Amino acid sequence: MIRFYNGRVLRFQPELRLTEDEVWVDGGRIAYVGPARTDRPAFERQIDLKGDLLMPGFKNAHSHTAMTFLRSKADNLPLDRWLSEQVWPNEARLTDEAVYTFTKLGIMEYVSSGITACFDMYVHNDAFTAACIEAGFRAVICSGLNNFDRDVEQTERDYLKYNSLHELISFRLGIHAEYTTCMERMEYAAGLAEKYHAPCFTHLSETKAEVEGCIARYGKTPPQLLDELGFFRYGGGGYHCVHMSGEDIALFAEKGLWAVTCPGSNLKLASGVAPIEKLRKAGVKLAIGTDGAASNNALDFFREMYLVTALQKLVEGDASACPAGEVLRMACVGGAGAMGLDDCDDIAPGKKADLIVIDLCRPNMQPVHSIPDNLVYAGSKENVRLTMVNGKILYENGEFFVGEEPERIYAAGNAFIRELKK
Amino acid sequence: MIRFYNGRVLRFQPELRLTEDEVWVDGGRIAYVGPARTDRPAFERQIDLKGDLLMPGFKNAHSHTAMTFLRSKADNLPLDRWLSEQVWPNEARLTDEAVYTFTKLGIMEYVSSGITACFDMYVHNDAFTAACIEAGFRAVICSGLNNFDRDVEQTERDYLKYNSLHELISFRLGIHAEYTTCMERMEYAAGLAEKYHAPCFTHLSETKAEVEGCIARYGKTPPQLLDELGFFRYGGGGYHCVHMSGEDIALFAEKGLWAVTCPGSNLKLASGVAPIEKLRKAGVKLAIGTDGAASNNALDFFREMYLVTALQKLVEGDASACPAGEVLRMACVGGAGAMGLDDCDDIAPGKKADLIVIDLCRPNMQPVHSIPDNLVYAGSKENVRLTMVNGKILYENGEFFVGEEPERIYAAGNAFIRELKK
Repeated sequence: MIRFYNGRVLRFQPELRLTEDEVWVDGGRIAYVGPARTDRPAFERQIDLKGDLLMPGFKNAHSHTAMTFLRSKADNLPLDRWLSEQVWPNEARLTDEAVYTFTKLGIMEYVSSGITACFDMYVHNDAFTAACIEAGFRAVICSGLNNFDRDVEQTERDYLKYNSLHELISFRLGIHAEYTTCMERMEYAAGLAEKYHAPCFTHLSETKAEVEGCIARYGKTPPQLLDELGFFRYGGGGYHCVHMSGEDIALFAEKGLWAVTCPGSNLKLASGVAPIEKLRKAGVKLAIGTDGAASNNALDFFREMYLVTALQKLVEGDASACPAGEVLRMACVGGAGAMGLDDCDDIAPGKKADLIVIDLCRPNMQPVHSIPDNLVYAGSKENVRLTMVNGKILYENGEFFVGEEPERIYAAGNAFIRELKK
Repeated sequence: MIRFYNGRVLRFQPELRLTEDEVWVDGGRIAYVGPARTDRPAFERQIDLKGDLLMPGFKNAHSHTAMTFLRSKADNLPLDRWLSEQVWPNEARLTDEAVYTFTKLGIMEYVSSGITACFDMYVHNDAFTAACIEAGFRAVICSGLNNFDRDVEQTERDYLKYNSLHELISFRLGIHAEYTTCMERMEYAAGLAEKYHAPCFTHLSETKAEVEGCIARYGKTPPQLLDELGFFRYGGGGYHCVHMSGEDIALFAEKGLWAVTCPGSNLKLASGVAPIEKLRKAGVKLAIGTDGAASNNALDFFREMYLVTALQKLVEGDASACPAGEVLRMACVGGAGAMGLDDCDDIAPGKKADLIVIDLCRPNMQPVHSIPDNLVYAGSKENVRLTMVNGKILYENGEFFVGEEPERIYAAGNAFIRELKK
């Protein structure tokens, strides 16, 4: 057992609060949260928090982890040209080894930013899961079915395979996006949702052109189209949700769908700002994602959390839009909900030990008027002192414990991009 | 002498470039930049860069450093209520000791973010300069003359006093803003500009309401009004510059005035997005500031640099707006120009040794397609390995060397805010 003591604990249930409890971790789960006790077990390690903050890890609810290979390669292009000129041609050259290496690189960036799980849609899933399992990182794969896939039935085989592969891995149904997936394949995905009573996810209403194209093709917005196909019969939701009509928002609220916002990527690709404050006020369930490093270009949850609230203040013209506590809830609890990781969403006995320690003794966390506000408005990766996934420490005091040396990962990554240039 | 070797150097003259030179620092200045030499002096310290990047420090061209005392105290309010309900009443209770402490706190945050100088407008300037000098930090004070000042003539006395106080300190003329300063005092400031042939700065066109108010009062926008008063006769510029008309932009370009953008603060207070891309294309000189920690709430130049470009992509609807190299130039060279620190703007022999070392061996800086793009789009405070001001190391590997222990600064700061609550 590992004991964390002498610090503060941020908990979400029954409401956002800070306690001075200690936390014991036994294997992959939290065993005890409460005051110091005299009947202590023999701990394998005791970590003095020295007044620092222990809280649930951030859940990156939309990612393409191995896209780290394109960071700073394809800047300054709008989404359509970025996809067709840079992303797809380069992705076609990806190998299992490259996806393994760049997934490891992404995981390092995640844990250095306090992220303990990602909801990933990408290619070479065997290499991706191998990297996650070796690193000890939790991942939920989302099917990215689209018109380029040679074998449609692979989706169902993947669903069964990855949902029984390893305790750190699960798989959710989905398609890449309406604009990359024909009607027959969208209906196939909806059929799987029906067969397995499973939620379905997709890139959704990311750009104005996407929504206009869908209306031209089908006379409906992407949320309306997919809903009528039965895609959302058992829940699920959309990544991005930038261009949502009032009807789309009402549909999301009524069906209990998740809107996963990716503000950094939407800025960088000039896609727009998702109406998070309107979604929030309509009661839509919200989570946050970084998207891939090719379009962000950082995988930094402090930056995403700040952007979620700061951009709402801008577009609503209201400095009180989207308060800090709500953003923290989206980042920790919301993300876990969207990903089906309900055991990973809080610091409480029986929950999975997916947690982080935030260094409060840095200038950006001082003085202490409000810890939640400090975290969201001023927090930075420098404040992540420790990241634990499933009871295992993957990052502590700047060092990585992801199954291999960072230098090997950097060297392999740079060797691959030298090949790309040939 | 201190020798930096075995790394890369980012230089701006004659154009943005990366070299593999070594850099020698002698006292407060850079003594040599070039290939390794056999005729070496006896170095007091040799720093192996291990492939990392040495570059000019960032210049924070608009700040209210000691406003760290209000971080996360006054969130969720628009600018007018934020000033009248939170900032001014609390500032009235500031003491010399508090300004000293919270300036030190701000300096710590600056150096941990790679900032080597600030252009500060605030109160209790003796306490501010004492903290800067003790820490070894470079600061340019801007006069914040306004209607609350009891003694107008203090501005001229301050100009003479702080411009001869210490090599790390200088002083520029200015007013707080048109909306807080009566015509008589604006004319007084313009008179001093004429007398000393000196540039003048002010908060300018920060909110729509400010511009509308100025037009209602004087029939002119703030830039036009001040220009006609002779305020800009010897240069200077404006902080924020969010709501600029086409004529305002042309005026700034024609007169060679500096527009200092503060994107984080403008978002948080829902003030808007400055037209940086339009200013840039019109040839206006640009610099970047964090504003104070009460309105940002971080003093993080990586966040500001990212916002400068990402928000332009959004408002221009153009993913190619404001490329990374231009943002780096604003952050390093532009800021130095606005502040009159022309000796602090590059890595070259004879320049002041105001420089930083960026750790490239972190996951967010990998792989290496483009170092400037990695810095601007993915950089973070975790990458700041060392910050040197005037030849003295103030920050290295997470540790601060600012004249006293961080713990004393945090404790004094929190003691003061407990008093504020009484």
